[in-house]
Amino acid sequence: MIKTDILIIGAGPTGLFAVFEAGLLQLKCHLIDALPQAGGQLAEIYPKKPIYDIPGFPEVMAGELVANLMEQIKPFQPGFTLGQRAETIEKLEDGTFVVTTNEGIQHHAPVVAIAGGLGSFEPRKPLLEGLEGYEDKGVAYMIRDPEIYRDKRVLIAGGGDSALDWSIFLAGVAREVTLVHRRNEFRGALDSVEKVQELKNLGKIRLITPAEVVQVAGKDKLESVLVRRNSDPEEDILVELDAFIPLFGLSPKLGPISNWGLEIEKNAIKVDNTLDYQTNIPGIYAIGDVNTYPGKLKLILCGFHEATLMCQSAYQRIHPEKRYVMKYTTVGGVTGFDGSKKEAPKAVVKAID
Amino acid sequence: MIKTDILIIGAGPTGLFAVFEAGLLQLKCHLIDALPQAGGQLAEIYPKKPIYDIPGFPEVMAGELVANLMEQIKPFQPGFTLGQRAETIEKLEDGTFVVTTNEGIQHHAPVVAIAGGLGSFEPRKPLLEGLEGYEDKGVAYMIRDPEIYRDKRVLIAGGGDSALDWSIFLAGVAREVTLVHRRNEFRGALDSVEKVQELKNLGKIRLITPAEVVQVAGKDKLESVLVRRNSDPEEDILVELDAFIPLFGLSPKLGPISNWGLEIEKNAIKVDNTLDYQTNIPGIYAIGDVNTYPGKLKLILCGFHEATLMCQSAYQRIHPEKRYVMKYTTVGGVTGFDGSKKEAPKAVVKAID
Repeated sequence: MIKTDILIIGAGPTGLFAVFEAGLLQLKCHLIDALPQAGGQLAEIYPKKPIYDIPGFPEVMAGELVANLMEQIKPFQPGFTLGQRAETIEKLEDGTFVVTTNEGIQHHAPVVAIAGGLGSFEPRKPLLEGLEGYEDKGVAYMIRDPEIYRDKRVLIAGGGDSALDWSIFLAGVAREVTLVHRRNEFRGALDSVEKVQELKNLGKIRLITPAEVVQVAGKDKLESVLVRRNSDPEEDILVELDAFIPLFGLSPKLGPISNWGLEIEKNAIKVDNTLDYQTNIPGIYAIGDVNTYPGKLKLILCGFHEATLMCQSAYQRIHPEKRYVMKYTTVGGVTGFDGSKKEAPKAVVKAID
Repeated sequence: MIKTDILIIGAGPTGLFAVFEAGLLQLKCHLIDALPQAGGQLAEIYPKKPIYDIPGFPEVMAGELVANLMEQIKPFQPGFTLGQRAETIEKLEDGTFVVTTNEGIQHHAPVVAIAGGLGSFEPRKPLLEGLEGYEDKGVAYMIRDPEIYRDKRVLIAGGGDSALDWSIFLAGVAREVTLVHRRNEFRGALDSVEKVQELKNLGKIRLITPAEVVQVAGKDKLESVLVRRNSDPEEDILVELDAFIPLFGLSPKLGPISNWGLEIEKNAIKVDNTLDYQTNIPGIYAIGDVNTYPGKLKLILCGFHEATLMCQSAYQRIHPEKRYVMKYTTVGGVTGFDGSKKEAPKAVVKAID
């Protein structure tokens, strides 16, 4: 069982920044996220897109903001359970919580902060008979670790940024990359489209368009798929492969959290915003895009503020006997759990003669 | 009379960021600040000190954060009334406000946002007979424009960063720089202390320590001061000069704002935080360190959030008939009042053949 002070559901920007504010209060955090890496939508959906409304950044790439936040929280050594969905929550007699993921990993903490954004991102799956039986046996909807495709035969389906970018990346890793899309036109960054064109010309990506995968087959694991071209629907192409990766986009779902007994309004968790963004269940907070209150704005910068106030309240819950006196980081510096110390250069007192 | 949509009292980080959020809503802002430049404490008190708790910045110099914010709000062309204190406010019959500074400049706006931090920074003045009579006639407590000291004879008093840094700067501008401090020891950044030592050795700064200015004199304007050394209290030194600049620090005072009829608690302005940080006077908001509400934290990042929610409410007040639909900057870009446009590179739709 993983133990921590604040268990954060969701490793997007709000959840990540909560680690920093908790760390200043000497509270440890552990994060659960359904996506295979930290950063939420910013890392998964639009890492290369600019954001203009983060205070102090006239422009910042979403992926860069995530990298900055990871650097900022590094001294506080957060734990991560990635690629798993928080499935159930149990309140123990002592008022603490146990959260279990869909893979059965248990997490124990006195405070749970839901920073789930728009929900956990679930892949859109193609409608193919028997497809689910091959999941984790050759079929994947997200690429968690590209290394597992080294020297393998991979077929990617899709026509957006993910399909383009992973085809490019895997062209340098896998033995064979086939890209299937139901149109000739791809939708993505110009340089990605051009790069795929180039790799296709070099024979490093096999392109089948406009076409669709219509059948999956294999004994214990996926062994082949049939691809049907619009131009020749009578003669399907048999593609033997090790992996079939449909990248048809992710759609957020509040998911299992909606069964945790929390007050839900407009697909978001209601909080009392006058103080600390706590939900109707004491000890469970909701911060960032996942919450709602009068005047709520679903902006990253609001999540940062909510995370900060939540941590103060969590501190009082965890240490009811203590009174925390806030120290400015410029004055007190930042002392990491890893023993690191960042602080402003001290003024000297020195005679001039 | 200066006219604007949102009149912001205080050009610290919170007030500056409000310009950005207002701009996204097509609202114009004008800022009043008692300090001679934008940035509040960050620019005046600790520009070279690091801040560690701005989300996305593992470390940022206060002055750099101000520069970033100025860059971020540039498309929205804010107006500034600097070096003046907001003195009086009058609510007109139509519900709009006129704010007048201590120098009589009038500002007219339907919404006033007080982002006054800990208050307006007032200099600590030495107790010297007749000193106030020479203010603006050779005596200044802050340096607004160092150019006015070009080729002049200047005496700076003080032993901290400001006294050190301005002595260094003016040594390259003024004809003569004399630095007087009541101790031999200065308190500041090591490199500043060493630089003053070096300039003193080169004869570019005349140092008189431990000593104090004990008398000011002049006919229509300041012409000389008497400096008394601890080592020789019987024989004062007459220093003829054009400018005497005591830099003994600034101390924040809520000041005239405390007479505006606003509810004050713990030297801060009470706001209703459930929605928009509005004060007891509709149309007047208080954001950042100047406000108080249950759970309030005096952090820059909280000011950013408060500024953002305030702008939404201000928009409704100014355009009661319109309903604003929020667009993410990543999707909608940023369109400046100066005609500039920042936006994410558009995805292309392009065939690969």
